[in-house]
Amino acid sequence: MGNLMKAVVTTTDKQTPLIDKEIARPEVNGHDVLVKIAASSMNPVDVKQLEVAQATQQERVLGFDAVGEIVAIGADVTDYQIGDRVFFAGELGRTGSNAEFEAVNEALIAKAPTTLSDIEAAALPLTFLTAYEMLADKFGIQMVADGAKGKTLLIINGAGGVGSIMIQLAKWLGMTVIATASRDETIAWVNDMGADEVVNHRENYVEAIKSLGYDEVPYIAVLHSLEQHFESAAALIGTFGHIGAIVQSMNPLPVGLIKNQAASLDWEFMFAKTNAGQNIASQGTALELLTGLVNDGFVKSTVTQTVDGLSAQTIADAQKEVSQGSMLGKLVIKY
Amino acid sequence: MGNLMKAVVTTTDKQTPLIDKEIARPEVNGHDVLVKIAASSMNPVDVKQLEVAQATQQERVLGFDAVGEIVAIGADVTDYQIGDRVFFAGELGRTGSNAEFEAVNEALIAKAPTTLSDIEAAALPLTFLTAYEMLADKFGIQMVADGAKGKTLLIINGAGGVGSIMIQLAKWLGMTVIATASRDETIAWVNDMGADEVVNHRENYVEAIKSLGYDEVPYIAVLHSLEQHFESAAALIGTFGHIGAIVQSMNPLPVGLIKNQAASLDWEFMFAKTNAGQNIASQGTALELLTGLVNDGFVKSTVTQTVDGLSAQTIADAQKEVSQGSMLGKLVIKY
Repeated sequence: MGNLMKAVVTTTDKQTPLIDKEIARPEVNGHDVLVKIAASSMNPVDVKQLEVAQATQQERVLGFDAVGEIVAIGADVTDYQIGDRVFFAGELGRTGSNAEFEAVNEALIAKAPTTLSDIEAAALPLTFLTAYEMLADKFGIQMVADGAKGKTLLIINGAGGVGSIMIQLAKWLGMTVIATASRDETIAWVNDMGADEVVNHRENYVEAIKSLGYDEVPYIAVLHSLEQHFESAAALIGTFGHIGAIVQSMNPLPVGLIKNQAASLDWEFMFAKTNAGQNIASQGTALELLTGLVNDGFVKSTVTQTVDGLSAQTIADAQKEVSQGSMLGKLVIKY
Repeated sequence: MGNLMKAVVTTTDKQTPLIDKEIARPEVNGHDVLVKIAASSMNPVDVKQLEVAQATQQERVLGFDAVGEIVAIGADVTDYQIGDRVFFAGELGRTGSNAEFEAVNEALIAKAPTTLSDIEAAALPLTFLTAYEMLADKFGIQMVADGAKGKTLLIINGAGGVGSIMIQLAKWLGMTVIATASRDETIAWVNDMGADEVVNHRENYVEAIKSLGYDEVPYIAVLHSLEQHFESAAALIGTFGHIGAIVQSMNPLPVGLIKNQAASLDWEFMFAKTNAGQNIASQGTALELLTGLVNDGFVKSTVTQTVDGLSAQTIADAQKEVSQGSMLGKLVIKY
């Protein structure tokens, strides 16, 4: 039984969508490393992928953030060795981090920040990659200190997982950050993350932002319903501006509103790279940057809640919390 | 009367929207040059701006493409002198080229290709700037020979004004160009412009393109109704792909279709730069490149029709022709 491991797997039963199960420990080959997971964090994509797994009747291990120690390496692994403490977001199509062990391609990982606990580190990879790729790949910002000095970034839903890390990354890039938040605790949180201005997304934030002296904004990250915020973003976007989005929009949107600004609507989806097998090593490189930023004090963990123990119950509870769509920072599961 | 000139001006009368009128010849100051117009070409934006002029009850001189000789220069002009033969697309907010003389900022112009007649040269500026900016500013392609070697570009409506010049520019960039065309003469035309593949946009071109061996396409220029073509473009776009558009879309569009590809929808509108006063010298620089490409034999004129003489009648006839939306190449008015 030495090759079995504890895992949480999906079922096709709507009442009990997640169960505890002993499954085979992954074998490692080629460029894979095997990581003993110490902690993972919960993301909206877990909720979505549970739906996909049920709809396609697949038994899957979810979990897309992890920190842990390498316990075995494939024959072709060159950059890591047994004993390294690493973190990563993995990929959609493989067995995930809701298990004792996970196999992951070395191109997708980086050594975890030495200044962070497992809980603190597990909160970061997926949200950082999302923030990084929107700013770098989509908005065309050079990822060096002060690489976008003086440029303004509006972040709709600044207090969520992606928003919390994007504020910090944007400040390192030298940007002026306007974040939206609506509750006392989220307003305090985005200020703590480094936002320069905070406006309330439950009120007319277009007017609020203009009255702060910003007639238009060159970069807008919509980290909440695009349906709900597209028209406001369109009213604020500047010439050649970029509106980035991450939450799937089921309804058609009036994209012609940004035509005269010659602006762009950019989707960011961090699993697109591994899904397509394109440029995947850029994710390991981005996580190396994250580790450097944390170790140098530019970025701190965004964890706000912790649940103890890997089990169907803790994963289900964490999914429920995240699916309410009003997260402050990140929820981490400590194994 | 020496300071008067012939012009075609807009009226608020729907029956006679354009009339011939003697108006003051523009004075030149600062960085402006005064050009005696030899020929202009007709673009869809003229039709749209006539509607705007009527709706806002403004008497305007339209015309956004011109070639001619410089007859006076402002005190601050450094790069041009009297006698230079130049071409340009100008800007929306000023008196246009449907007149004997036009004042234009030297940042927006370039010397016209020596190998082209006035008629041939007048066809090119606005459409080239549109094609150039979509590929350079929006798709991020480096504007050097073979700067996108081997990459595939799908051009919806390859035979129109922008499509005809974009095919040629893309071939210089080393791209594989799939152009759509539906009539015998437009199919022959896009082949003549250099298209590698031609598919019919009145049939199922998604299937046609896939059966040619292209499972997905990284760059798609929709140079016709975006409403009509967005879903097909979404079915073809690759991971991190770009869908560029130039025709205003009045209806909402299902932009969520390109979310999982992490793709972008980019609006290109060449007057956005002068409207915003941002980076306007890039347009003169782009036209200098065009002149070089023509003189070196990489690009030929896209003119297909000529009308003789500047008058309300010739401009109205040209607008009517262009507004039918099935242009082959460009229509030029020889003054």
